[in-house]
Amino acid sequence: MEPGHSCTTEVVIVGGGFAGLHAARALRHAPVRVTLIDRRNFHLFQPLLYQVATGALSPSDIASPLRRILRKQKNARVFMGEVVGLNPRERKVLLENGFVSYDYLVIATGAENDYFGRNEWQARAPGLKTIEDATAMRAHILAAFEGAERESDPERQTEWLTFVIVGGGPTGVELAGALAEIARKTLRNDFRNIQPERARILLLDAGDRVLGAYPEELSRKAERHLIGLGVRPRCGVRVQEITDRGVWVQLRDGRREWIGARTVLWAAGVRASGLSHILAEETGAQLDRRGAVYVNEDLSLPGYPEIFVAGDLAHVEQDGRQVPGVAPAAIQMGRFVAVEIQRRLRGQPPRRFRYRDKGSLAVIGRHAAVAWFGPLRFGGILAWLAWLFVHIVYLIGYQNRLLVLLQWALKYITFNPRARLITGEAVDVPKEARVEETGMRASS
Amino acid sequence: MEPGHSCTTEVVIVGGGFAGLHAARALRHAPVRVTLIDRRNFHLFQPLLYQVATGALSPSDIASPLRRILRKQKNARVFMGEVVGLNPRERKVLLENGFVSYDYLVIATGAENDYFGRNEWQARAPGLKTIEDATAMRAHILAAFEGAERESDPERQTEWLTFVIVGGGPTGVELAGALAEIARKTLRNDFRNIQPERARILLLDAGDRVLGAYPEELSRKAERHLIGLGVRPRCGVRVQEITDRGVWVQLRDGRREWIGARTVLWAAGVRASGLSHILAEETGAQLDRRGAVYVNEDLSLPGYPEIFVAGDLAHVEQDGRQVPGVAPAAIQMGRFVAVEIQRRLRGQPPRRFRYRDKGSLAVIGRHAAVAWFGPLRFGGILAWLAWLFVHIVYLIGYQNRLLVLLQWALKYITFNPRARLITGEAVDVPKEARVEETGMRASS
Repeated sequence: MEPGHSCTTEVVIVGGGFAGLHAARALRHAPVRVTLIDRRNFHLFQPLLYQVATGALSPSDIASPLRRILRKQKNARVFMGEVVGLNPRERKVLLENGFVSYDYLVIATGAENDYFGRNEWQARAPGLKTIEDATAMRAHILAAFEGAERESDPERQTEWLTFVIVGGGPTGVELAGALAEIARKTLRNDFRNIQPERARILLLDAGDRVLGAYPEELSRKAERHLIGLGVRPRCGVRVQEITDRGVWVQLRDGRREWIGARTVLWAAGVRASGLSHILAEETGAQLDRRGAVYVNEDLSLPGYPEIFVAGDLAHVEQDGRQVPGVAPAAIQMGRFVAVEIQRRLRGQPPRRFRYRDKGSLAVIGRHAAVAWFGPLRFGGILAWLAWLFVHIVYLIGYQNRLLVLLQWALKYITFNPRARLITGEAVDVPKEARVEETGMRASS
Repeated sequence: MEPGHSCTTEVVIVGGGFAGLHAARALRHAPVRVTLIDRRNFHLFQPLLYQVATGALSPSDIASPLRRILRKQKNARVFMGEVVGLNPRERKVLLENGFVSYDYLVIATGAENDYFGRNEWQARAPGLKTIEDATAMRAHILAAFEGAERESDPERQTEWLTFVIVGGGPTGVELAGALAEIARKTLRNDFRNIQPERARILLLDAGDRVLGAYPEELSRKAERHLIGLGVRPRCGVRVQEITDRGVWVQLRDGRREWIGARTVLWAAGVRASGLSHILAEETGAQLDRRGAVYVNEDLSLPGYPEIFVAGDLAHVEQDGRQVPGVAPAAIQMGRFVAVEIQRRLRGQPPRRFRYRDKGSLAVIGRHAAVAWFGPLRFGGILAWLAWLFVHIVYLIGYQNRLLVLLQWALKYITFNPRARLITGEAVDVPKEARVEETGMRASS
């Protein structure tokens, strides 16, 4: 035995999202040492990123340091670092400058924005997977209103006040609803030259309806809510080009159309994080077209019973459908893997992972949502309250959930002006907006 | 008269800091139109930046959108933009893409970090003037603890756990105190391989004592408080070189010394913002060696009675001493200028600006401070309460100061874990820290 190393079973978890963190927590009484590795030092409550992007919440409202969450779990430690390789034969995870050995490995590095090979669009149309994505999106949105306020030319002013959201899934719908509300309510009295409530918000989707994965009845309900808020959903529209001044789209009949818009937001899709390619290379794991890893029924990697994949990175089929990339599925996978590791330590046979669909929710604006809990389908404020409840229940790392709820309520009521900061080095002032103003001299 | 323009007197204010914002607010009943121009969309409560830098507060706690603060002041509007030039003959302020005409101009663009010609130090030793400075500093500090946790080599671990603060003025003292407290208290149980409370915090100053501008008795008091918190103040030390691994310093006897430290924080000095050079070029204004503008007794520019300079950008002498670059001075100048403009509109003669020194305060840690109100000089918790009171009184843009106070109190009591996020694109994981861990295989 080498000095400084015990002979405890080493469980290494890569990724501190819903899957990885819940796996770590579920191992708290297990006779193992848990090492959680993440590039970032915090767990991010991704389902609320759109609220940061629209200035309703601050980054610190939806993120919590991993180290803090796990501080009382004595069998867990946290390493901040980027995994750059894997040696499955020697059971080592490689970091930039060193390695960590494992007996069991859980890989849960999640998903990232997918621009379908058009990565140059990223700078023009920020997506929504990280805190930086959200603050960049917020900066784009707020700077557009600032640009419109400065702009003297009416046509160019319209471009500043046009917002295109690409992708009508839950993220796109939630973004559109939140954006409509800040334009119509929050910012209403803040400007002098423009009326923010006249902002055009277009929600583009290539499919037949928004929320394509939801029952059609709820899609219709969501569309009605959106239209009521001033959002214009446009289905059957495919984005072909994104420029600084707008987007070229192709309609279903093949015609092309130009939409002038200074702000384009990306909610069209995600793909598995880059680690899946390292995994494929080192273990021969098979990836689907989104880069997710095909796993065994017990979420282990074919041929590697000591390696598990959980969360968005895992491709799991159930009843002929793929388990969706949502937080509840990731949490369930994380917990399942933790139990599975303990079963193996006790010599018990592997089980089969079953995703229990507890329903889907999409929020549209402040007091409306559509919910889908199996046979139950409903909308409006009831669905919104359900959303609030579900989010509070799933909050992790917030020692006092009630307190967080109160703070959020307060921010919601006051429309939290202080979350509307344009920050970040990458953010530029709206230089393009032309100001030409000749005031009359006053006699002094 | 051109269409769309009234013949109201146009007051243009450049800069939304303490001076500019207070000038704008003090003009709320004046028969003028106020245009406030700032590169950023928010007012920043700079005296609390060090709390963001050390993870006690979040950026949104100390910043408030200018547009929000002025939303009810109907004679004021806000333009987000960067002033790139000035045409004093035509009375025009030039933005990147256009111009705004003025009858009266107030320039209050403040100060920025001064690296005394060694701008390459900026990346290695972040200063503390902007929100991005503060989050960068926070990321440096927290990443250093992360690096130490990962590092296997004891000597290199010490480098990660050594923090050098350059400059023993109020900013350096406040930073050192806050840093000592997060190391000794906040982070205490968060790590497994290191003891954060063993962090070495060195406060370097080239002068004889910390807080050189304060009475000597308070400097001594501050030094004792700092030492009690575990900070090591080192005076008579001049920084010669800053590298990724530490600093070369020169002692008073001429000897050189190497201090190994992964984190170097800059609190050594500020200079007037770049706009003063444009001002000098276009109006012949004289600048001091820090770039601040020499102004008339009424804060107007020599030869340009319609142009005022206020805040850190103005060089004002009073009783043989320069008025210091502190928030109360900037607020007083801003308000003075607003009254002066109204007096000119009424044909009244200019007055002389007098700075009323209401005292100085420097906070050391959570419950200690040194205060200096003319004859009154005191330290300890009383000074800290005075500090709290003064800051609450001067808070601007927070509609409910009591609410803010309560929120802060809550964050202070709970040590606000959620402010400890390492964010920003520029931030890297501590790649340099070597991890070499070989766990023992468990039988599975």
